Amino acid sequence: MNLILLSDNDFTGHNLAVLRDERRVKHILGVHRADVGDTLKVGLVNDKVGEGTITAIKDCSVTLSVALTSPPPIPSNVRLILALPRPPMLKRILQTISTLGIKELVLLQSSRVDKSYWQTPQLNELKIREELILGLEQARDTVLPQISFAKRFRPFVEDSLIDFVGTEQGFVAHPYARQSSPHNIEAPCVIAIGPEGGFLDKEVDEFSRRGFTGISLGERILRVETAVTYLLGRFSNNVTNSSMATAGLK
Amino acid sequence: MNLILLSDNDFTGHNLAVLRDERRVKHILGVHRADVGDTLKVGLVNDKVGEGTITAIKDCSVTLSVALTSPPPIPSNVRLILALPRPPMLKRILQTISTLGIKELVLLQSSRVDKSYWQTPQLNELKIREELILGLEQARDTVLPQISFAKRFRPFVEDSLIDFVGTEQGFVAHPYARQSSPHNIEAPCVIAIGPEGGFLDKEVDEFSRRGFTGISLGERILRVETAVTYLLGRFSNNVTNSSMATAGLK
Repeated sequence: MNLILLSDNDFTGHNLAVLRDERRVKHILGVHRADVGDTLKVGLVNDKVGEGTITAIKDCSVTLSVALTSPPPIPSNVRLILALPRPPMLKRILQTISTLGIKELVLLQSSRVDKSYWQTPQLNELKIREELILGLEQARDTVLPQISFAKRFRPFVEDSLIDFVGTEQGFVAHPYARQSSPHNIEAPCVIAIGPEGGFLDKEVDEFSRRGFTGISLGERILRVETAVTYLLGRFSNNVTNSSMATAGLK
Repeated sequence: MNLILLSDNDFTGHNLAVLRDERRVKHILGVHRADVGDTLKVGLVNDKVGEGTITAIKDCSVTLSVALTSPPPIPSNVRLILALPRPPMLKRILQTISTLGIKELVLLQSSRVDKSYWQTPQLNELKIREELILGLEQARDTVLPQISFAKRFRPFVEDSLIDFVGTEQGFVAHPYARQSSPHNIEAPCVIAIGPEGGFLDKEVDEFSRRGFTGISLGERILRVETAVTYLLGRFSNNVTNSSMATAGLK
Protein backbone atom coordinates (compact mmCIF):
# COMPACT_ATOMS: atom_id res chain seq x y z
CA MET A 1 0.00 0.00 0.00
CA ASN A 2 2.11 2.88 -1.31
CA LEU A 3 -0.89 5.18 -1.23
CA ILE A 4 -3.92 5.26 1.08
CA LEU A 5 -6.86 5.21 -1.32
CA LEU A 6 -9.88 7.11 -0.04
CA SER A 7 -13.45 7.01 -1.25
CA ASP A 8 -16.13 9.70 -0.91
CA ASN A 9 -17.63 7.74 2.00
CA ASP A 10 -14.50 8.32 4.05
CA PHE A 11 -14.99 12.08 4.11
CA THR A 12 -16.83 13.63 7.05
CA GLY A 13 -16.00 17.19 6.06
CA HIS A 14 -14.48 19.02 3.11
CA ASN A 15 -10.90 17.96 3.81
CA LEU A 16 -11.41 15.55 6.65
CA ALA A 17 -11.43 11.79 6.14
CA VAL A 18 -12.03 9.22 8.88
CA LEU A 19 -10.83 5.68 8.15
CA ARG A 20 -12.54 2.97 10.16
CA ASP A 21 -11.85 -0.22 8.22
CA GLU A 22 -9.38 -2.66 9.71
CA ARG A 23 -7.33 -3.08 6.52
CA ARG A 24 -6.25 0.53 6.08
CA VAL A 25 -6.11 1.38 9.81
CA LYS A 26 -3.93 -1.65 10.52
CA HIS A 27 -1.66 -0.74 7.62
CA ILE A 28 -1.26 2.88 8.74
CA LEU A 29 -0.58 1.94 12.34
CA GLY A 30 1.18 -1.39 11.85
CA VAL A 31 3.22 -1.04 8.66
CA HIS A 32 3.75 2.73 8.42
CA ARG A 33 3.82 2.96 12.25
CA ALA A 34 2.36 6.41 11.74
CA ASP A 35 1.29 8.71 14.56
CA VAL A 36 -0.63 11.95 14.95
CA GLY A 37 1.12 14.65 12.90
CA ASP A 38 2.60 12.22 10.38
CA THR A 39 1.88 12.69 6.69
CA LEU A 40 0.93 9.89 4.29
CA LYS A 41 0.45 9.75 0.54
CA VAL A 42 -3.27 9.57 -0.19
CA GLY A 43 -5.56 9.65 -3.20
CA LEU A 44 -9.29 9.80 -3.83
CA VAL A 45 -10.81 7.11 -6.06
CA ASN A 46 -11.03 8.42 -9.65
CA ASP A 47 -9.60 11.75 -8.50
CA LYS A 48 -6.35 13.43 -7.50
CA VAL A 49 -3.51 12.31 -5.25
CA GLY A 50 -1.91 14.29 -2.44
CA GLU A 51 -1.15 14.08 1.24
CA GLY A 52 -3.07 13.26 4.39
CA THR A 53 -1.88 14.41 7.80
CA ILE A 54 -3.05 12.35 10.74
CA THR A 55 -5.01 14.57 13.13
CA ALA A 56 -6.41 11.89 15.42
CA ILE A 57 -6.13 8.17 16.20
CA LYS A 58 -8.85 6.67 18.39
CA ASP A 59 -11.29 3.80 18.71
CA CYS A 60 -9.58 1.92 15.87
CA SER A 61 -10.04 4.86 13.53
CA VAL A 62 -7.61 7.27 11.89
CA THR A 63 -8.58 10.84 11.00
CA LEU A 64 -6.72 12.55 8.18
CA SER A 65 -6.62 16.16 7.06
CA VAL A 66 -6.41 15.71 3.31
CA ALA A 67 -4.95 17.91 0.56
CA LEU A 68 -5.40 16.49 -2.96
CA THR A 69 -3.03 18.39 -5.20
CA SER A 70 -1.74 16.34 -8.16
CA PRO A 71 -3.19 14.31 -10.99
CA PRO A 72 -2.80 10.52 -10.74
CA PRO A 73 -0.14 8.83 -12.93
CA ILE A 74 -0.63 8.84 -16.68
CA PRO A 75 -2.73 5.83 -17.71
CA SER A 76 -1.43 3.14 -20.05
CA ASN A 77 -2.01 3.63 -23.76
CA VAL A 78 -3.18 0.02 -23.94
CA ARG A 79 -6.69 -1.37 -23.61
CA LEU A 80 -6.83 -5.12 -23.13
CA ILE A 81 -9.03 -7.94 -24.32
CA LEU A 82 -8.17 -11.03 -22.33
CA ALA A 83 -9.57 -14.53 -22.60
CA LEU A 84 -10.93 -15.21 -19.11
CA PRO A 85 -8.07 -16.75 -17.10
CA ARG A 86 -8.35 -19.42 -14.41
CA PRO A 87 -9.77 -17.86 -11.21
CA PRO A 88 -6.55 -17.77 -9.11
CA MET A 89 -4.68 -16.22 -12.01
CA LEU A 90 -7.51 -13.76 -12.65
CA LYS A 91 -7.03 -12.38 -9.14
CA ARG A 92 -3.34 -11.63 -9.74
CA ILE A 93 -3.93 -10.31 -13.26
CA LEU A 94 -6.55 -7.83 -12.05
CA GLN A 95 -4.03 -6.44 -9.56
CA THR A 96 -1.30 -6.33 -12.17
CA ILE A 97 -3.26 -4.56 -14.89
CA SER A 98 -4.48 -2.06 -12.31
CA THR A 99 -0.88 -1.42 -11.17
CA LEU A 100 0.28 -1.01 -14.76
CA GLY A 101 -2.33 1.64 -15.52
CA ILE A 102 -4.66 -0.28 -17.82
CA LYS A 103 -8.04 1.47 -17.68
CA GLU A 104 -10.17 -0.82 -19.81
CA LEU A 105 -10.27 -4.60 -19.81
CA VAL A 106 -12.69 -6.94 -21.57
CA LEU A 107 -12.75 -10.50 -20.25
CA LEU A 108 -13.67 -12.71 -23.18
CA GLN A 109 -14.95 -16.24 -23.70
CA SER A 110 -12.88 -18.33 -26.11
CA SER A 111 -13.02 -21.99 -27.09
CA ARG A 112 -10.14 -22.86 -24.76
CA VAL A 113 -11.73 -21.09 -21.75
CA ASP A 114 -13.46 -23.56 -19.44
CA LYS A 115 -17.02 -22.25 -19.19
CA SER A 116 -17.06 -22.98 -15.44
CA TYR A 117 -14.62 -20.08 -14.95
CA TRP A 118 -17.53 -17.69 -15.48
CA GLN A 119 -19.09 -19.03 -12.26
CA THR A 120 -16.17 -18.06 -10.02
CA PRO A 121 -16.89 -15.71 -7.09
CA GLN A 122 -13.76 -13.82 -8.24
CA LEU A 123 -15.98 -12.22 -10.90
CA ASN A 124 -18.21 -10.70 -8.25
CA GLU A 125 -18.16 -6.91 -8.62
CA LEU A 126 -16.90 -6.30 -5.09
CA LYS A 127 -14.16 -8.94 -5.41
CA ILE A 128 -12.98 -7.40 -8.65
CA ARG A 129 -12.95 -3.96 -7.07
CA GLU A 130 -10.90 -5.27 -4.15
CA GLU A 131 -8.16 -6.57 -6.47
CA LEU A 132 -8.17 -3.42 -8.60
CA ILE A 133 -7.81 -1.27 -5.49
CA LEU A 134 -4.82 -3.33 -4.31
CA GLY A 135 -3.23 -2.67 -7.69
CA LEU A 136 -3.96 1.08 -7.54
CA GLU A 137 -2.56 1.34 -4.00
CA GLN A 138 0.63 -0.37 -5.21
CA ALA A 139 1.05 2.04 -8.15
CA ARG A 140 -0.14 5.19 -6.33
CA ASP A 141 -2.93 5.51 -8.85
CA THR A 142 -6.58 6.37 -8.16
CA VAL A 143 -8.44 5.64 -11.40
CA LEU A 144 -10.34 2.35 -11.31
CA PRO A 145 -10.14 0.32 -14.51
CA GLN A 146 -13.41 -0.52 -16.24
CA ILE A 147 -13.89 -4.27 -16.49
CA SER A 148 -16.49 -5.77 -18.79
CA PHE A 149 -17.50 -9.32 -19.65
CA ALA A 150 -18.01 -10.82 -23.09
CA LYS A 151 -19.36 -14.23 -22.21
CA ARG A 152 -19.80 -15.25 -25.84
CA PHE A 153 -16.96 -14.91 -28.35
CA ARG A 154 -18.86 -14.53 -31.60
CA PRO A 155 -21.39 -11.85 -30.60
CA PHE A 156 -18.56 -9.81 -29.09
CA VAL A 157 -16.30 -9.87 -32.15
CA GLU A 158 -19.18 -9.51 -34.61
CA ASP A 159 -21.18 -6.80 -32.86
CA SER A 160 -18.83 -4.93 -30.53
CA LEU A 161 -15.18 -5.35 -31.51
CA ILE A 162 -15.02 -2.76 -34.30
CA ASP A 163 -16.69 -0.11 -32.15
CA PHE A 164 -14.46 -1.04 -29.21
CA VAL A 165 -11.28 -0.55 -31.23
CA GLY A 166 -12.46 2.58 -33.02
CA THR A 167 -9.58 4.18 -34.88
CA GLU A 168 -6.89 2.58 -32.72
CA GLN A 169 -4.49 -0.12 -33.80
CA GLY A 170 -5.40 -3.67 -32.73
CA PHE A 171 -2.98 -6.52 -31.98
CA VAL A 172 -3.69 -10.15 -31.24
CA ALA A 173 -1.00 -12.17 -29.49
CA HIS A 174 -0.59 -15.49 -31.26
CA PRO A 175 2.23 -18.02 -31.02
CA TYR A 176 2.73 -18.41 -34.76
CA ALA A 177 2.21 -14.85 -35.88
CA ARG A 178 4.76 -13.67 -38.41
CA GLN A 179 5.41 -10.32 -36.79
CA SER A 180 7.29 -9.99 -33.54
CA SER A 181 5.59 -7.79 -30.99
CA PRO A 182 6.54 -4.17 -31.65
CA HIS A 183 8.22 -1.97 -29.09
CA ASN A 184 7.07 1.29 -27.70
CA ILE A 185 3.77 1.82 -29.43
CA GLU A 186 3.02 5.26 -28.03
CA ALA A 187 -0.42 5.64 -29.59
CA PRO A 188 -3.51 4.22 -27.92
CA CYS A 189 -4.00 0.61 -28.97
CA VAL A 190 -5.91 -2.55 -28.15
CA ILE A 191 -4.20 -5.87 -27.42
CA ALA A 192 -6.04 -9.20 -27.36
CA ILE A 193 -4.40 -12.05 -25.45
CA GLY A 194 -5.67 -15.61 -25.65
CA PRO A 195 -6.12 -18.25 -22.96
CA GLU A 196 -3.64 -20.96 -21.99
CA GLY A 197 -3.15 -22.83 -25.25
CA GLY A 198 -3.92 -19.69 -27.25
CA PHE A 199 -6.89 -18.58 -29.30
CA LEU A 200 -8.03 -21.07 -31.94
CA ASP A 201 -6.83 -20.24 -35.46
CA LYS A 202 -10.37 -19.38 -36.46
CA GLU A 203 -10.63 -17.02 -33.50
CA VAL A 204 -7.39 -15.29 -34.53
CA ASP A 205 -8.88 -15.00 -38.03
CA GLU A 206 -11.91 -13.18 -36.59
CA PHE A 207 -9.57 -10.60 -35.06
CA SER A 208 -7.47 -10.35 -38.24
CA ARG A 209 -10.58 -9.78 -40.34
CA ARG A 210 -11.28 -6.75 -38.16
CA GLY A 211 -7.87 -5.21 -38.69
CA PHE A 212 -5.92 -6.79 -35.83
CA THR A 213 -2.25 -7.55 -36.47
CA GLY A 214 -1.05 -10.92 -35.22
CA ILE A 215 2.03 -10.57 -33.02
CA SER A 216 4.29 -13.33 -31.78
CA LEU A 217 5.27 -13.74 -28.18
CA GLY A 218 8.12 -16.00 -29.23
CA GLU A 219 8.74 -19.70 -28.98
CA ARG A 220 8.61 -19.73 -25.19
CA ILE A 221 5.15 -20.51 -23.85
CA LEU A 222 4.37 -17.93 -21.17
CA ARG A 223 1.78 -18.15 -18.44
CA VAL A 224 -0.99 -15.69 -19.18
CA GLU A 225 -0.03 -13.42 -16.29
CA THR A 226 3.59 -13.34 -17.46
CA ALA A 227 2.48 -12.68 -21.04
CA VAL A 228 0.32 -9.73 -19.96
CA THR A 229 3.10 -7.98 -18.05
CA TYR A 230 5.71 -8.84 -20.68
CA LEU A 231 3.58 -7.40 -23.49
CA LEU A 232 2.74 -4.29 -21.48
CA GLY A 233 6.48 -3.81 -20.95
CA ARG A 234 6.94 -3.82 -24.71
CA PHE A 235 3.96 -1.66 -25.61
CA SER A 236 3.55 0.68 -22.76
CA ASN A 237 4.08 4.41 -22.89
CA ASN A 238 4.29 4.55 -19.11
CA VAL A 239 7.99 4.59 -18.74
CA THR A 240 8.69 7.20 -21.35
CA ASN A 241 6.01 9.59 -20.25
CA SER A 242 6.62 9.20 -16.59
CA SER A 243 10.37 9.46 -16.80
CA MET A 244 9.83 12.76 -18.55
CA ALA A 245 7.53 13.71 -15.72
CA THR A 246 9.94 12.67 -12.98
CA ALA A 247 13.21 13.70 -14.60
CA GLY A 248 13.30 16.88 -12.56
CA LEU A 249 12.37 15.32 -9.25
CA LYS A 250 15.66 14.08 -7.96
CA MET B 1 4.13 -28.61 -17.99
CA ASN B 2 4.41 -27.94 -21.71
CA LEU B 3 7.47 -30.19 -21.91
CA ILE B 4 8.44 -33.27 -19.89
CA LEU B 5 11.93 -32.43 -18.64
CA LEU B 6 14.19 -35.47 -18.30
CA SER B 7 17.46 -35.83 -16.44
CA ASP B 8 20.28 -38.30 -17.10
CA ASN B 9 19.03 -40.41 -14.17
CA ASP B 10 15.79 -41.11 -16.02
CA PHE B 11 17.58 -42.99 -18.81
CA THR B 12 17.89 -46.77 -18.55
CA GLY B 13 19.20 -47.17 -22.09
CA HIS B 14 20.42 -44.99 -24.94
CA ASN B 15 16.99 -43.70 -25.93
CA LEU B 16 14.86 -45.17 -23.19
CA ALA B 17 13.71 -43.13 -20.18
CA VAL B 18 11.64 -44.48 -17.30
CA LEU B 19 9.80 -41.89 -15.19
CA ARG B 20 8.91 -43.02 -11.69
CA ASP B 21 8.24 -39.79 -9.80
CA GLU B 22 4.65 -38.99 -8.94
CA ARG B 23 4.74 -35.43 -10.27
CA ARG B 24 5.58 -36.22 -13.90
CA VAL B 25 3.75 -39.57 -14.03
CA LYS B 26 0.58 -37.98 -12.63
CA HIS B 27 0.86 -35.15 -15.13
CA ILE B 28 1.33 -37.45 -18.11
CA LEU B 29 -1.53 -39.74 -17.11
CA GLY B 30 -3.86 -37.21 -15.44
CA VAL B 31 -3.44 -33.98 -17.41
CA HIS B 32 -2.25 -35.21 -20.80
CA ARG B 33 -4.33 -38.41 -20.37
CA ALA B 34 -1.66 -40.05 -22.48
CA ASP B 35 -1.54 -43.75 -23.27
CA VAL B 36 0.92 -46.21 -24.80
CA GLY B 37 1.79 -45.03 -28.32
CA ASP B 38 1.15 -41.35 -27.57
CA THR B 39 3.92 -38.83 -28.19
CA LEU B 40 4.86 -36.03 -25.79
CA LYS B 41 7.24 -33.09 -26.05
CA VAL B 42 10.32 -33.86 -23.97
CA GLY B 43 13.71 -32.31 -23.28
CA LEU B 44 16.88 -33.31 -21.47
CA VAL B 45 18.20 -30.93 -18.81
CA ASN B 46 20.88 -28.66 -20.36
CA ASP B 47 20.46 -30.47 -23.68
CA LYS B 48 18.14 -30.76 -26.67
CA VAL B 49 14.36 -31.00 -26.96
CA GLY B 50 12.39 -33.54 -28.96
CA GLU B 51 9.69 -36.15 -28.59
CA GLY B 52 9.06 -39.10 -26.33
CA THR B 53 6.75 -41.92 -27.32
CA ILE B 54 5.18 -43.89 -24.51
CA THR B 55 6.15 -47.54 -24.82
CA ALA B 56 4.89 -48.80 -21.46
CA ILE B 57 2.84 -47.72 -18.45
CA LYS B 58 3.05 -49.90 -15.36
CA ASP B 59 3.60 -49.87 -11.59
CA CYS B 60 3.18 -46.08 -11.49
CA SER B 61 5.94 -45.61 -14.05
CA VAL B 62 5.96 -44.39 -17.63
CA THR B 63 8.55 -45.58 -20.17
CA LEU B 64 9.38 -43.30 -23.07
CA SER B 65 11.31 -43.91 -26.25
CA VAL B 66 13.08 -40.59 -26.66
CA ALA B 67 14.37 -38.71 -29.73
CA LEU B 68 16.11 -35.43 -28.92
CA THR B 69 16.32 -33.49 -32.17
CA SER B 70 16.22 -29.70 -31.72
CA PRO B 71 18.08 -27.07 -29.72
CA PRO B 72 16.21 -25.49 -26.81
CA PRO B 73 14.81 -21.95 -27.27
CA ILE B 74 17.28 -19.08 -27.64
CA PRO B 75 18.23 -17.73 -24.20
CA SER B 76 17.53 -14.17 -23.12
CA ASN B 77 20.21 -11.58 -23.81
CA VAL B 78 19.77 -10.32 -20.26
CA ARG B 79 21.63 -11.35 -17.12
CA LEU B 80 20.02 -10.18 -13.90
CA ILE B 81 21.21 -8.85 -10.58
CA LEU B 82 18.28 -8.79 -8.21
CA ALA B 83 18.11 -7.61 -4.62
CA LEU B 84 16.92 -10.69 -2.72
CA PRO B 85 13.10 -10.56 -2.72
CA ARG B 86 10.79 -11.71 0.07
CA PRO B 87 10.66 -15.54 0.11
CA PRO B 88 7.15 -16.05 -1.39
CA MET B 89 7.99 -13.61 -4.17
CA LEU B 90 11.38 -15.26 -4.73
CA LYS B 91 9.62 -18.52 -5.53
CA ARG B 92 7.51 -16.93 -8.27
CA ILE B 93 10.41 -14.86 -9.62
CA LEU B 94 12.62 -17.93 -9.99
CA GLN B 95 9.93 -19.59 -12.09
CA THR B 96 9.40 -16.45 -14.14
CA ILE B 97 13.05 -15.75 -14.96
CA SER B 98 13.48 -19.40 -15.89
CA THR B 99 10.45 -19.22 -18.20
CA LEU B 100 11.73 -16.02 -19.78
CA GLY B 101 15.08 -17.56 -20.63
CA ILE B 102 17.35 -15.76 -18.16
CA LYS B 103 20.44 -17.94 -17.69
CA GLU B 104 22.30 -16.03 -15.00
CA LEU B 105 20.92 -14.43 -11.86
CA VAL B 106 22.77 -12.94 -8.91
CA LEU B 107 20.70 -12.51 -5.74
CA LEU B 108 22.16 -9.52 -3.93
CA GLN B 109 22.02 -8.07 -0.43
CA SER B 110 21.03 -4.40 -0.28
CA SER B 111 20.26 -2.08 2.63
CA ARG B 112 16.51 -2.49 2.13
CA VAL B 113 16.69 -6.31 2.07
CA ASP B 114 15.72 -7.81 5.43
CA LYS B 115 18.72 -9.96 6.38
CA SER B 116 16.41 -12.72 7.63
CA TYR B 117 15.44 -13.40 3.99
CA TRP B 118 18.80 -15.15 3.57
CA GLN B 119 17.64 -17.79 6.05
CA THR B 120 14.63 -18.90 4.01
CA PRO B 121 14.46 -22.58 3.00
CA GLN B 122 13.52 -21.25 -0.46
CA LEU B 123 17.25 -20.62 -0.99
CA ASN B 124 18.01 -24.30 -0.55
CA GLU B 125 19.66 -25.63 -3.71
CA LEU B 126 16.99 -28.27 -4.33
CA LYS B 127 14.13 -25.82 -3.74
CA ILE B 128 15.64 -23.38 -6.21
CA ARG B 129 16.10 -26.14 -8.76
CA GLU B 130 12.44 -27.16 -8.32
CA GLU B 131 11.20 -23.66 -9.18
CA LEU B 132 13.61 -23.28 -12.11
CA ILE B 133 12.45 -26.59 -13.54
CA LEU B 134 8.80 -25.52 -13.32
CA GLY B 135 9.76 -22.42 -15.30
CA LEU B 136 11.65 -24.45 -17.92
CA GLU B 137 8.77 -26.91 -18.31
CA GLN B 138 6.43 -23.95 -18.89
CA ALA B 139 8.67 -22.43 -21.59
CA ARG B 140 9.74 -25.73 -23.18
CA ASP B 141 13.33 -24.90 -22.34
CA THR B 142 15.97 -27.24 -20.90
CA VAL B 143 18.84 -25.02 -19.82
CA LEU B 144 18.93 -24.40 -16.06
CA PRO B 145 19.78 -20.84 -15.06
CA GLN B 146 22.83 -20.33 -12.85
CA ILE B 147 21.86 -18.70 -9.56
CA SER B 148 24.48 -17.19 -7.28
CA PHE B 149 24.34 -15.35 -3.98
CA ALA B 150 26.04 -12.08 -3.06
CA LYS B 151 25.22 -11.85 0.62
CA ARG B 152 27.16 -8.63 1.08
CA PHE B 153 26.60 -5.64 -1.18
CA ARG B 154 29.96 -3.88 -0.99
CA PRO B 155 32.29 -6.84 -1.61
CA PHE B 156 30.16 -7.84 -4.58
CA VAL B 157 30.16 -4.45 -6.29
CA GLU B 158 33.79 -3.71 -5.41
CA ASP B 159 35.34 -7.08 -6.21
CA SER B 160 33.03 -8.88 -8.65
CA LEU B 161 30.74 -6.49 -10.50
CA ILE B 162 33.15 -5.26 -13.17
CA ASP B 163 34.21 -8.80 -14.04
CA PHE B 164 30.59 -9.93 -14.03
CA VAL B 165 29.55 -7.25 -16.53
CA GLY B 166 32.62 -7.61 -18.73
CA THR B 167 32.16 -5.66 -21.96
CA GLU B 168 28.35 -5.70 -21.76
CA GLN B 169 26.14 -2.72 -21.06
CA GLY B 170 24.84 -2.42 -17.49
CA PHE B 171 21.55 -0.87 -16.38
CA VAL B 172 20.25 -0.20 -12.89
CA ALA B 173 16.51 0.31 -12.44
CA HIS B 174 15.92 3.34 -10.27
CA PRO B 175 12.72 5.33 -9.73
CA TYR B 176 14.27 8.75 -10.32
CA ALA B 177 16.65 7.92 -13.12
CA ARG B 178 16.63 10.47 -15.91
CA GLN B 179 16.55 7.95 -18.72
CA SER B 180 13.50 5.89 -19.50
CA SER B 181 14.20 2.21 -19.93
CA PRO B 182 15.25 1.54 -23.51
CA HIS B 183 13.44 -0.84 -25.81
CA ASN B 184 14.76 -3.84 -27.59
CA ILE B 185 18.38 -3.93 -26.50
CA GLU B 186 19.48 -6.84 -28.66
CA ALA B 187 23.02 -7.07 -27.32
CA PRO B 188 23.83 -9.01 -24.17
CA CYS B 189 23.39 -6.78 -21.13
CA VAL B 190 23.12 -6.83 -17.35
CA ILE B 191 20.16 -5.34 -15.46
CA ALA B 192 20.21 -4.67 -11.72
CA ILE B 193 16.83 -4.36 -9.98
CA GLY B 194 16.50 -3.15 -6.39
CA PRO B 195 14.32 -4.39 -3.55
CA GLU B 196 10.92 -3.04 -2.56
CA GLY B 197 11.64 0.60 -1.84
CA GLY B 198 14.54 0.57 -4.32
CA PHE B 199 18.29 0.62 -3.91
CA LEU B 200 19.62 3.40 -1.69
CA ASP B 201 21.00 6.37 -3.62
CA LYS B 202 24.50 5.46 -2.54
CA GLU B 203 23.97 1.92 -3.82
CA VAL B 204 22.82 3.27 -7.19
CA ASP B 205 25.97 5.43 -7.18
CA GLU B 206 28.11 2.31 -6.77
CA PHE B 207 26.52 0.85 -9.90
CA SER B 208 26.83 4.15 -11.80
CA ARG B 209 30.51 4.41 -10.90
CA ARG B 210 31.00 1.07 -12.62
CA GLY B 211 29.38 2.16 -15.87
CA PHE B 212 25.74 1.26 -15.17
CA THR B 213 23.09 3.52 -16.69
CA GLY B 214 20.20 4.42 -14.39
CA ILE B 215 16.86 3.66 -16.01
CA SER B 216 13.45 4.71 -14.81
CA LEU B 217 10.57 2.34 -14.43
CA GLY B 218 8.17 5.25 -14.37
CA GLU B 219 6.13 6.91 -11.67
CA ARG B 220 4.13 3.78 -10.92
CA ILE B 221 5.64 1.69 -8.15
CA LEU B 222 5.73 -1.90 -9.36
CA ARG B 223 6.03 -5.04 -7.27
CA VAL B 224 9.45 -6.58 -7.86
CA GLU B 225 8.02 -9.55 -9.76
CA THR B 226 6.03 -7.22 -12.02
CA ALA B 227 9.08 -5.01 -12.55
CA VAL B 228 11.22 -8.00 -13.58
CA THR B 229 8.79 -9.24 -16.23
CA TYR B 230 7.98 -5.71 -17.41
CA LEU B 231 11.67 -4.88 -17.87
CA LEU B 232 12.38 -8.17 -19.61
CA GLY B 233 9.51 -7.36 -21.97
CA ARG B 234 11.25 -4.11 -22.85
CA PHE B 235 14.77 -5.47 -23.11
CA SER B 236 14.43 -8.97 -24.29
CA ASN B 237 15.55 -10.25 -27.66
CA ASN B 238 13.35 -13.32 -27.26
CA VAL B 239 10.46 -12.18 -29.31
CA THR B 240 12.44 -10.93 -32.25
CA ASN B 241 14.68 -13.92 -32.51
CA SER B 242 12.03 -16.48 -31.90
CA SER B 243 9.50 -14.94 -34.21
CA MET B 244 12.14 -15.17 -36.90
CA ALA B 245 12.55 -18.80 -35.92
CA THR B 246 8.85 -19.58 -35.96
CA ALA B 247 7.79 -17.42 -38.87
CA GLY B 248 7.72 -20.38 -41.18
CA LEU B 249 5.85 -22.72 -38.89
CA LYS B 250 2.27 -21.79 -39.52
